[in-house]
Amino acid sequence: MSDRLPQTLARLRAVVGDGGWIDDPAAMAPFLEEQRGRYRGRAAAVVAPASTDEVARVLALCNEARLGVVPQGGNTGLCGGAVAAEGQIILSLRRMRRIRALDARNRTLTAEAGCILADVQSAAAAAGRLFPLSLAAEGSCQIGGNLATNAGGTNALRYGVARDLTLGIEVVLADGSVWDGLSTLKKDNTGYDLRDLFIGSEGTLGVITAATLRLFPRPGDVQTALLALDDVDRALAVLDRLQDASDGRVNACELMGAMSVAFAVRHVAGCRAPFATLPPWLLLVEISGGRAVDELRPLFEATLAEALQAGEIADAVLAESRAQAQAFWRLRESIPEAQKFEGGSIKHDVSVPVSAVPAFLRRAGAAVEAALPGVRVCPFGHLGDGNIHFNVSQPIGADRAAFLAEWERCNRIVHDIVAELGGSFSAEHGIGRLKRDALRRYKSPVAVEAMRRIKQALDPNGILNPGALL
Amino acid sequence: MSDRLPQTLARLRAVVGDGGWIDDPAAMAPFLEEQRGRYRGRAAAVVAPASTDEVARVLALCNEARLGVVPQGGNTGLCGGAVAAEGQIILSLRRMRRIRALDARNRTLTAEAGCILADVQSAAAAAGRLFPLSLAAEGSCQIGGNLATNAGGTNALRYGVARDLTLGIEVVLADGSVWDGLSTLKKDNTGYDLRDLFIGSEGTLGVITAATLRLFPRPGDVQTALLALDDVDRALAVLDRLQDASDGRVNACELMGAMSVAFAVRHVAGCRAPFATLPPWLLLVEISGGRAVDELRPLFEATLAEALQAGEIADAVLAESRAQAQAFWRLRESIPEAQKFEGGSIKHDVSVPVSAVPAFLRRAGAAVEAALPGVRVCPFGHLGDGNIHFNVSQPIGADRAAFLAEWERCNRIVHDIVAELGGSFSAEHGIGRLKRDALRRYKSPVAVEAMRRIKQALDPNGILNPGALL
Repeated sequence: MSDRLPQTLARLRAVVGDGGWIDDPAAMAPFLEEQRGRYRGRAAAVVAPASTDEVARVLALCNEARLGVVPQGGNTGLCGGAVAAEGQIILSLRRMRRIRALDARNRTLTAEAGCILADVQSAAAAAGRLFPLSLAAEGSCQIGGNLATNAGGTNALRYGVARDLTLGIEVVLADGSVWDGLSTLKKDNTGYDLRDLFIGSEGTLGVITAATLRLFPRPGDVQTALLALDDVDRALAVLDRLQDASDGRVNACELMGAMSVAFAVRHVAGCRAPFATLPPWLLLVEISGGRAVDELRPLFEATLAEALQAGEIADAVLAESRAQAQAFWRLRESIPEAQKFEGGSIKHDVSVPVSAVPAFLRRAGAAVEAALPGVRVCPFGHLGDGNIHFNVSQPIGADRAAFLAEWERCNRIVHDIVAELGGSFSAEHGIGRLKRDALRRYKSPVAVEAMRRIKQALDPNGILNPGALL
Repeated sequence: MSDRLPQTLARLRAVVGDGGWIDDPAAMAPFLEEQRGRYRGRAAAVVAPASTDEVARVLALCNEARLGVVPQGGNTGLCGGAVAAEGQIILSLRRMRRIRALDARNRTLTAEAGCILADVQSAAAAAGRLFPLSLAAEGSCQIGGNLATNAGGTNALRYGVARDLTLGIEVVLADGSVWDGLSTLKKDNTGYDLRDLFIGSEGTLGVITAATLRLFPRPGDVQTALLALDDVDRALAVLDRLQDASDGRVNACELMGAMSVAFAVRHVAGCRAPFATLPPWLLLVEISGGRAVDELRPLFEATLAEALQAGEIADAVLAESRAQAQAFWRLRESIPEAQKFEGGSIKHDVSVPVSAVPAFLRRAGAAVEAALPGVRVCPFGHLGDGNIHFNVSQPIGADRAAFLAEWERCNRIVHDIVAELGGSFSAEHGIGRLKRDALRRYKSPVAVEAMRRIKQALDPNGILNPGALL
């Protein structure tokens, strides 16, 4: 292979032209950096095709030459899924950023893989529709990457994850053949569900070049509240009550432990909790719908009053304005950033059945504190999906590097508890290169074997994202 | 193989015992009959395991002996997906009918494959929840079959198809290994989406033995109306208006052509259309939600008044009682039955983008009437999903057999138009043995090749449902 590398690179360069070719080390650097600094990428070149046809020709050449290809979107992933190695190329989709079609009546939008998520949201909004996928990196992540990793985010409770929001995809397979699966159909039972197989496969089975996405009515009213809870068990009762009362129109139900909120208030400008004393748990809830502003307000107020009456919540503050609602969200969204000021943080992106969240928090909290005395447990996340970002900050004054050296041990403790509760060690961030060991440990061997066989069937030369996922 | 057949059958019988063994021709007959009478099944035996472990042992034996296995649920499919041939066995899931678990707070229910759909609905209702999958055969179809064929039905518009309603599955693979994928998680990004690959694979990749299903709030109010339309184009505007006003809470939006309704009124007791003269098109719409009876009534009335004002509908009758709502549904559900009284009927289960439904109806109607003069076009179905059952009744007084001999030609005309509109030749009924030719004609060769490779990877001996789907 290595003998033919220069020759293959020259042929690839001829396909994409100078505008799609980067091999200068300084210019390649942003494509090689990995967000959390856990990996150092390398690559023979960054190749950025401008069309599906160019992607097909690039893959055909790489397949012939057995050259490893690491597809990359906005490079915002958290599990090292887009990290290339020596002698591989990065296939960047950034030049494919056209919105190909929008059918407001069919409620579909067709976007190329390199479209920035926020631009997809804007295109939908301009047509009077909502594209509900929303996550912290939305200003720079690309829709192709969102699909390759089956992104979740804060609205998944109501609208589902990326897979649920997609009707069709266009994919280039390892051998360069193109599957035009850009269906805009709600129903189509003509064979195996290839779409959902490629979605979430982290670029190991094919390269998604475009997708047909589902659009929704734009709600006329959004109601947001911050709730104070003495006890996390009661959060489930509040959520249930809100879901029943609003007929499933709860967009988000975000749980925040007191420590997480304290960090945000301490370190991030503009963050404050609207309670005189910080309660053990805060819940950020949002419902939306209807045609008119304040249409849902009476329902929201009445339901929260019932929850207060029933002792499920200790206090509630309803946002009185869009600005106040944004301030509530800022508190939630500042948590990961705020943790950086408190030293090292060991991360977990886990899910358990929603009904098991309180048991998980109790057990994992106790186990981690026993194993790593003095640590500060900072759980937060998507309660409604059972998806908790169970982050653990180092003890005050401890050595950062020494604490981070406990990463694997801490993960193991938490993931063992998650497994006992029927949960997942990677709820929304995927496997990438970071969680392959966990996959082997926790995933059913029957499932892993089936995955291996599918990988072998669709990418027999193993050129697609080598070293990721499996 | 045939030499070893008696020996293999004896070993299979030892696995399931006498209670799970049928080889008497009379007793086997119901398992061999196919609903529309297009196939004559045969089988060496009907084997009905009582547990997942027995299914695993049965498949391991069949795999070793290269014995074809046709999995069968309630045998209500419409495409011959569960028809066995000489020297194959039928694997009936009917004895596995336990509800294994129900978690009201997590909104999940775990059912074995042989559970009747109506029993799953009842179990959910008893826990104060809704399992929304609903279709004509719900009194006898089994949940395993619903998943194997990715069933749709009348509530798919709001709640999705079987795939969307499933969180996890337990599957026995061709070699007898068992994948316990009975997750109750909302989010789990740990590898390829095997769940959705098995769902809809019509028993050709594995046998689904149990599933974890999603439950929803039980609506306190259901509002139903029958609308009269002069023009099918306007149906889309009404649907849009209702979706926006109800914030996506339209359960069903069923279109009925005048001819379909006339047949139902003529032939089925208790069917009548609540309009003095039959309009060209009728639309049955249902919205639901809230906590109290009549909570949605004002919204429904106001929205339909707006539609009337805007000229989208010519008339509207809102159901004044549960009985009247049922009568509206009876009209819709009697259509397939009523068509039988009018002689032969050539069926199509197609979908197109919702926005293309009017164009499809015009073009397909004209093409079929031109090709087969005198036929009576009776389209009806799930407008909100773009899924039309485009049925064509024979000319009055024509010879039934001669008309039905035109089945393939008629299908071809309709499916060609569907393909041009970006639609599907099988929206919800699947491929089975009936639509394999259409699959080869209309499906992308790249997709078919990927499907073949996956089949080969997971069932290398080709024992699972031979002759179905691929």
